[in-house]
Amino acid sequence: MVYLTRKAEFSASHYYHNPDLTPEENQRIFGKSGNPNGHGHNYTLEVTVKGEVDSRSGFVVDLKKLKEILNREVLDALDHRFLNKEVPEFSRQIPTTENLAIAIWQRIQPKLQNAQLHRVRVYESPNLFVDFYGKA
Amino acid sequence: MVYLTRKAEFSASHYYHNPDLTPEENQRIFGKSGNPNGHGHNYTLEVTVKGEVDSRSGFVVDLKKLKEILNREVLDALDHRFLNKEVPEFSRQIPTTENLAIAIWQRIQPKLQNAQLHRVRVYESPNLFVDFYGKA
Amino acid sequence: MVYLTRKAEFSASHYYHNPDLTPEENQRIFGKSGNPNGHGHNYTLEVTVKGEVDSRSGFVVDLKKLKEILNREVLDALDHRFLNKEVPEFSRQIPTTENLAIAIWQRIQPKLQNAQLHRVRVYESPNLFVDFYGKA
Amino acid sequence: MVYLTRKAEFSASHYYHNPDLTPEENQRIFGKSGNPNGHGHNYTLEVTVKGEVDSRSGFVVDLKKLKEILNREVLDALDHRFLNKEVPEFSRQIPTTENLAIAIWQRIQPKLQNAQLHRVRVYESPNLFVDFYGKA
Amino acid sequence: MVYLTRKAEFSASHYYHNPDLTPEENQRIFGKSGNPNGHGHNYTLEVTVKGEVDSRSGFVVDLKKLKEILNREVLDALDHRFLNKEVPEFSRQIPTTENLAIAIWQRIQPKLQNAQLHRVRVYESPNLFVDFYGKA
Amino acid sequence: MVYLTRKAEFSASHYYHNPDLTPEENQRIFGKSGNPNGHGHNYTLEVTVKGEVDSRSGFVVDLKKLKEILNREVLDALDHRFLNKEVPEFSRQIPTTENLAIAIWQRIQPKLQNAQLHRVRVYESPNLFVDFYGKA
Repeated sequence: MVYLTRKAEFSASHYYHNPDLTPEENQRIFGKSGNPNGHGHNYTLEVTVKGEVDSRSGFVVDLKKLKEILNREVLDALDHRFLNKEVPEFSRQIPTTENLAIAIWQRIQPKLQNAQLHRVRVYESPNLFVDFYGKA
Repeated sequence: MVYLTRKAEFSASHYYHNPDLTPEENQRIFGKSGNPNGHGHNYTLEVTVKGEVDSRSGFVVDLKKLKEILNREVLDALDHRFLNKEVPEFSRQIPTTENLAIAIWQRIQPKLQNAQLHRVRVYESPNLFVDFYGKA
Repeated sequence: MVYLTRKAEFSASHYYHNPDLTPEENQRIFGKSGNPNGHGHNYTLEVTVKGEVDSRSGFVVDLKKLKEILNREVLDALDHRFLNKEVPEFSRQIPTTENLAIAIWQRIQPKLQNAQLHRVRVYESPNLFVDFYGKA
Repeated sequence: MVYLTRKAEFSASHYYHNPDLTPEENQRIFGKSGNPNGHGHNYTLEVTVKGEVDSRSGFVVDLKKLKEILNREVLDALDHRFLNKEVPEFSRQIPTTENLAIAIWQRIQPKLQNAQLHRVRVYESPNLFVDFYGKA
Repeated sequence: MVYLTRKAEFSASHYYHNPDLTPEENQRIFGKSGNPNGHGHNYTLEVTVKGEVDSRSGFVVDLKKLKEILNREVLDALDHRFLNKEVPEFSRQIPTTENLAIAIWQRIQPKLQNAQLHRVRVYESPNLFVDFYGKA
Repeated sequence: MVYLTRKAEFSASHYYHNPDLTPEENQRIFGKSGNPNGHGHNYTLEVTVKGEVDSRSGFVVDLKKLKEILNREVLDALDHRFLNKEVPEFSRQIPTTENLAIAIWQRIQPKLQNAQLHRVRVYESPNLFVDFYGKA
């Protein structure tokens, strides 16, 4: 079993707000991240797949197909977007790094063949990142 | 003469649009950066000052004062902001990395004492940055 | 279950010496790290917590509280310190990166509420780091 | 149980080709990586060992010995080499990052004493890396 | 006057040899970089252009055109190539980082319009890079 | 004219204190950097030399000789040292990053032959660095 990780980057904006909370609670929990105009990040995504090494190719996964899936399911949908307004998952969920990692898992996992998704890591900045390994 | 550089980071969102151009021209020049909802970046700012080394302190600039200036003039004004809507310089200027570097120079330069501003560098991403050295 | 990691940095000095060993053994094991004047590093700390995503906030942990704990329990105690002389854990233990990771775990773990500490990673330099996951 | 990771770097060239496949299949699977003149990378290797902290030294592994093993078994054999032509493992195996991680594990693992090899990570570039944890 | 820098990466292999020198001189000057099978690097290229900021676009250079020039003149020609054998400039010149920076300048400079080429920087590794500013 | 830059790293400890100032002034200027036990950094040094490219070697400087000079004049003298106590330049000068860059220039410059020293850059941390270009 070998694990292969590929990085990709996208730029997006977001803000944090829960309509079920009072303005005071929103301010206390989210601080300046609650600015409804939004602010943004250069997100770095690391997708890790695992599997046996194919003896014909020496690869654990077809890198071209993996790249196509990341481009179509993640980058085309999230890059240069305002997450709260333009990405369906975040019409009712707060686009925290945690929820973003889960959403990316759910977008990629059904599309992968042969290789198995192991981990989705999302860096919001070089100093903060989230890992999601699926439900298990 | 010694040059000292200090880095700082801020997150902001922006979009590129020139109201004097046709929609087609805007699309051709700005592509997906023209999305009016905005998208964002983790900007990295490098501010370089130059001067003689003070023999009493061994410093070319008082680092605490430099940090205060960067915080007050730049980070408080730009961090977690939508540049087009919330930063006065960009109400009529497009917030490109070029214009951002110039705006930051103009915010910092009048506040510096003793040391002289040499360069403002702004990274929009690890792969793209702009340098501004003032009018000269 | 989601894992969130936050980085922090501190500068400290240390040296390696075991008084129960002969000078020759100390020299053989520790080499130039045994210089009693000390030398120093910019340490990078990565603290990983795990937990369920809170549906009200979208967070796995209150980042402000996590930051306060890291500041109070780790950075205030270790930053700009000579570890052997000024940090109680190292009055009788050698302040290797291994022991530093364990000490930081023991400082943080009792203070965390709700979220669970998963891993402490300490980089002594970009080329050397240690991970500690607790006793288990 | 503590995990210690040490990085090292080497430069090598390689190309991807499977003589049992048709030229068309080779082209489809390997694209421009199939150029038989070879192309190259600055590989980054991370070797992680695990063990108890030795109370006499505060170390989980003798770093000097670990460095010697990495130099002799890995860097001397792979650095500044054309992997397909000069490294025995790749006379019949394609030198993908996956196979390179496995080969490095097999070179290091029998030489380690006291500490236990936990993981070999190989970065082919900052955007692509492979992890191998042994057969288990 | 504003300076804009864009990074790009390519992987190539090369070796160092001067046929006018004796084998002993080649060995003394080039050491293990003289292995005729070649070894490789992930090169990082930084191209800096300078100019006035265009008031209509806020740009100093059309980034799409700059990217096209870099792709066509540099990356298509050098990426995944054995520099000594496949790149005309190096049929008679040694492909050192110095000569590579000069060759990239000469490939890009005639193609740029409006903006002026200021500097070509080539990193052979994170620890070694070369700058070329043209003949002047 | 081509510029070549080589990086090197060293770990050292230091503290900031001027015996001609009152304790209050020292505290105000130097804050926690004034702790006399010292604290430390992983310093990164970048040395830039300039010259014509030698047509026989393709090099602007003999990299092996440059490395020897850096090792002997800088790393052997500063690495794993307490700068205030063990490096002569700092017996009467405060070992700020500014003074460290000047001291390294003065150590290297007289030893270089053929190539000309252009710049010494010293990073105290990833967020703070100093450049010195000599007296001119």
